[in-house]
Amino acid sequence: MARPRSTKVTVREVAAEAGVSIATVSRVLNGQAVVTAGTRQAVEQAVERLGGPAARPPARPGAVLVRCPYLLTDYFGVILSAVAEALDAHGRQLVLNAGEAARDARVLAELPGRRDIAGALLILPVEESEELAELRRRDVPFVVIDPRTPVPRDIAAVSAAHFAGARNVAAHLVGLGHRRIGLINGPSEWLASSSRLAGHASALAEVGVLVDPALVASIEPTSDWGHTAARRLLDLPERPTALAAFNDKAAVGALRAAHERGLRVPEDLSVTGFDDLYLSRSSVPMLTTVRQPLEELGGMAVSLLLRLMEGRTVEALHVELATELVVRGSTGPVAQPSAGRSM
Amino acid sequence: MARPRSTKVTVREVAAEAGVSIATVSRVLNGQAVVTAGTRQAVEQAVERLGGPAARPPARPGAVLVRCPYLLTDYFGVILSAVAEALDAHGRQLVLNAGEAARDARVLAELPGRRDIAGALLILPVEESEELAELRRRDVPFVVIDPRTPVPRDIAAVSAAHFAGARNVAAHLVGLGHRRIGLINGPSEWLASSSRLAGHASALAEVGVLVDPALVASIEPTSDWGHTAARRLLDLPERPTALAAFNDKAAVGALRAAHERGLRVPEDLSVTGFDDLYLSRSSVPMLTTVRQPLEELGGMAVSLLLRLMEGRTVEALHVELATELVVRGSTGPVAQPSAGRSM
Repeated sequence: MARPRSTKVTVREVAAEAGVSIATVSRVLNGQAVVTAGTRQAVEQAVERLGGPAARPPARPGAVLVRCPYLLTDYFGVILSAVAEALDAHGRQLVLNAGEAARDARVLAELPGRRDIAGALLILPVEESEELAELRRRDVPFVVIDPRTPVPRDIAAVSAAHFAGARNVAAHLVGLGHRRIGLINGPSEWLASSSRLAGHASALAEVGVLVDPALVASIEPTSDWGHTAARRLLDLPERPTALAAFNDKAAVGALRAAHERGLRVPEDLSVTGFDDLYLSRSSVPMLTTVRQPLEELGGMAVSLLLRLMEGRTVEALHVELATELVVRGSTGPVAQPSAGRSM
Repeated sequence: MARPRSTKVTVREVAAEAGVSIATVSRVLNGQAVVTAGTRQAVEQAVERLGGPAARPPARPGAVLVRCPYLLTDYFGVILSAVAEALDAHGRQLVLNAGEAARDARVLAELPGRRDIAGALLILPVEESEELAELRRRDVPFVVIDPRTPVPRDIAAVSAAHFAGARNVAAHLVGLGHRRIGLINGPSEWLASSSRLAGHASALAEVGVLVDPALVASIEPTSDWGHTAARRLLDLPERPTALAAFNDKAAVGALRAAHERGLRVPEDLSVTGFDDLYLSRSSVPMLTTVRQPLEELGGMAVSLLLRLMEGRTVEALHVELATELVVRGSTGPVAQPSAGRSM
């Protein structure tokens, strides 16, 4: 059925007409070499029948390299899943560079010369800011997801609102009467750690409390390190009434430390996490935590990258996505010093 | 430094001579189009200087498609990380098709026509056995990791030894005196579920006990379903003294159910998991579980696939990798019926 040329033909209509997937139509229209000649012809004929040609996006052809040099467990796995789905919906092939062994791979230096790669997504990159700036100078479209250190202003980056998230969870604890709150923070050189500390301090400052350096620990955000840091904080002469951890894994380690000390959570000690991973709903009690918008991070990063690959200007290069406080069973009112278990 | 032609030149030596990574050398030797002309020349000159040519493997050029149509959390994330590292070590590009939205994608049907893809790894494929057989007939090299349903004999598949793993953990419980063991199994149509049930039954049969159907639940292996199934089993008139779960997530749900009933683990109830994910070391108490060789699964699958891509015959097409029983705090001797907490 031929239609007037002026009518806009959608990719969905072409897919239905040609009997192929939307992703395949996108591949053909993007000029990718991964479809068979027969499929290409079917799509082109469908476009012709529908009164095309469909608007061919001016984007660079090629795949998107996703670099995530970590073990792809929950946190990274959720982001990567969202990235994979978003790229597929746009008919872009995902080339993956992942796993801890990828940390030392000099993948970025090779990127400018790779004609098969149209752009890149770098998840919590281990590379120095200078290396990212060099990539930017060489006109490789890329977006940083969850930057580890501050990135230059002209590099696109997407992260969660660390400051606001940490401020909200600290305000929740403050609202329950807690004033001595141990902060089990991430590595001090991480951008997320300094933002979280600032958010934490901001909530305490509202009730006239300054952060006591003795109550701040900096750790690798794992369960074991969270356990060790919590033990140290709980051994202080005047022990904290709450522990706010950098992530759910560290919080689970803190729960274990509380259990070993015979402290009931939340009656004797409140504990909070960050991320809202599966883990936070698996512990007893379930964790009060801050939901990081991991799927949205992935989707937003793909959206920004596609615009950069089309050579379009992106308004806000640094995007922060809102977090959400999730209150569960691991936080409660501060225990009155004079009241014991006999209450 | 030129050497006699007869000397075998290794990829490592070429990499050192050309000043590039081993992966880059492999890419050049595999004829992949992803390296710059300059790099290609540097490698070729290094081969020449070292008295090459190095043996060029006859493998098909191209990337490896990895299809994992699930959220990439722990279980899948660990396998995928290992696959990514192994492919990178062989200079093979990884094209990823993942995320729950990928479930409906007709990726396999398009594979035979894709010249950019040399082979595929299918993790817990959702496709029917017939669709896999069709791919095999069309000469696409591929390996199934953790088949969901039985695969034809001529299709390469790698999985954990489900029968032996389940038998070992059940034997551990039997050795502690347990006879009424609730089995929180996976979906009944899964290959893993039927193998696990058989292994479980085998350990019980050794002490003259037949599996009581009332003690077997089939669930989606998540924490919530594990929780629901455990509640039902614990409400039986004669409640089980142990619960063996299909995975760590379901086991964590069972721990929660025990906690709600006021049952102490392991004093009143033993609980076991399967997988040995991060989760199993995060619960209180930590889980006795069966370690699945997830990294080895990924590495072995890549190794098999590379051989198939080279057109070589593979001896054992169905590989089962050994599991390992990991005993932690969630299992203990069965409580004597006559003895109470006053013991």
